Amino acid sequence: MTQPTVTMEFVPAETYQRIQQFYARHMQLLDDGAAEEWAETFTEDAFFEQNVKDEPWRGREQIGTRLRRGIDAMGDSGVQRRHWFGMISARPGEAAGELRTRYYALVLETPAGGAPSVRLSIVGEDVLVEDDGALLVKYRSIAHDGAV
Amino acid sequence: MTQPTVTMEFVPAETYQRIQQFYARHMQLLDDGAAEEWAETFTEDAFFEQNVKDEPWRGREQIGTRLRRGIDAMGDSGVQRRHWFGMISARPGEAAGELRTRYYALVLETPAGGAPSVRLSIVGEDVLVEDDGALLVKYRSIAHDGAV
Amino acid sequence: MTQPTVTMEFVPAETYQRIQQFYARHMQLLDDGAAEEWAETFTEDAFFEQNVKDEPWRGREQIGTRLRRGIDAMGDSGVQRRHWFGMISARPGEAAGELRTRYYALVLETPAGGAPSVRLSIVGEDVLVEDDGALLVKYRSIAHDGAV
Repeated sequence: MTQPTVTMEFVPAETYQRIQQFYARHMQLLDDGAAEEWAETFTEDAFFEQNVKDEPWRGREQIGTRLRRGIDAMGDSGVQRRHWFGMISARPGEAAGELRTRYYALVLETPAGGAPSVRLSIVGEDVLVEDDGALLVKYRSIAHDGAV
Repeated sequence: MTQPTVTMEFVPAETYQRIQQFYARHMQLLDDGAAEEWAETFTEDAFFEQNVKDEPWRGREQIGTRLRRGIDAMGDSGVQRRHWFGMISARPGEAAGELRTRYYALVLETPAGGAPSVRLSIVGEDVLVEDDGALLVKYRSIAHDGAV
Repeated sequence: MTQPTVTMEFVPAETYQRIQQFYARHMQLLDDGAAEEWAETFTEDAFFEQNVKDEPWRGREQIGTRLRRGIDAMGDSGVQRRHWFGMISARPGEAAGELRTRYYALVLETPAGGAPSVRLSIVGEDVLVEDDGALLVKYRSIAHDGAV
């Protein structure tokens, strides 16, 4: 799923801003701890891999369950996480109605009474699909910078 | 003014990019120390509250005055502030011509001869209104992450 | 080339999102170490100045060569750089087909096995031109915050 870097193939304005709006809502749900609503922004059969996990997450249900576990583990830490997506490039996917994106992400954490810090710098690659007018994540590959 | 997080109601592409362009100019004015011009991007009767202030600022004039005071207090510190807005979600407001946004913001500071640091991670909620083709901030609620 | 800060002159949605998509690809090329492909996103006669360099870079060839030298110097450091552009304001340029932008940029670095840090906070001003349907950078002026 490596994206050819030299292409300047763009998506239409309407599509590009829908992707931006989708990612904003999508990650605000995550940062609000809304695990189940966040899982609903993936397809039923979604595939989610990260270069810091041995196994991918498969399917909306597993994604929601794993996320809930992660949120509960953070528990009452009082740390607020914020996921920023940016530098989003997008192009048509291979199947009709599919979009491929490549983007940067930052994870910031702010402890109660403390200052924010940038915890992670990430590159993400998604396949998004349209479902009844909404966008959903079908495939996501996340690479943490600095992972060894 | 809590925004329901599960909605995927979007605004049109044209509207979304105008909001992006507006925020870019709006915050560049602030970072350039243009207190009066910045105040002009609020409505006459604007309401601006922050979770780190006891009292809201009310009206364009007070907003400009308070900001000028803040800028003057920073004085010759030689610190350059940059406000980044991102992850902007937007939906129609309750009144015609109103838009509601929810976004993340970062404040970075760079001292003369030094390295930048992320000073604040913020969630903002605005009501924007159209005025003679331009957007203006009518209501703003700013919540600093980690505020106790 | 100082941009009047009070203008709220905008570019059309279609133009604005093309600029966003262009910058995303453009800087992903840089961060991927694709010096030659990156140079191709400048015009043949591009002018690139930075407030931390004594001399500007002139022309696509010099830009590619200097960048390649920089990348080679970083060598096997294992540090991953990410350039983020944001807060992009845009307006028509003086000549037909030209666009002027003013934006913020961050440079993040993540060492192998380490945490990311924000190395630079930047303000950039570009003149972009259309060439056969693509955007190219004709002029770029980069100012590092905190430079003394």
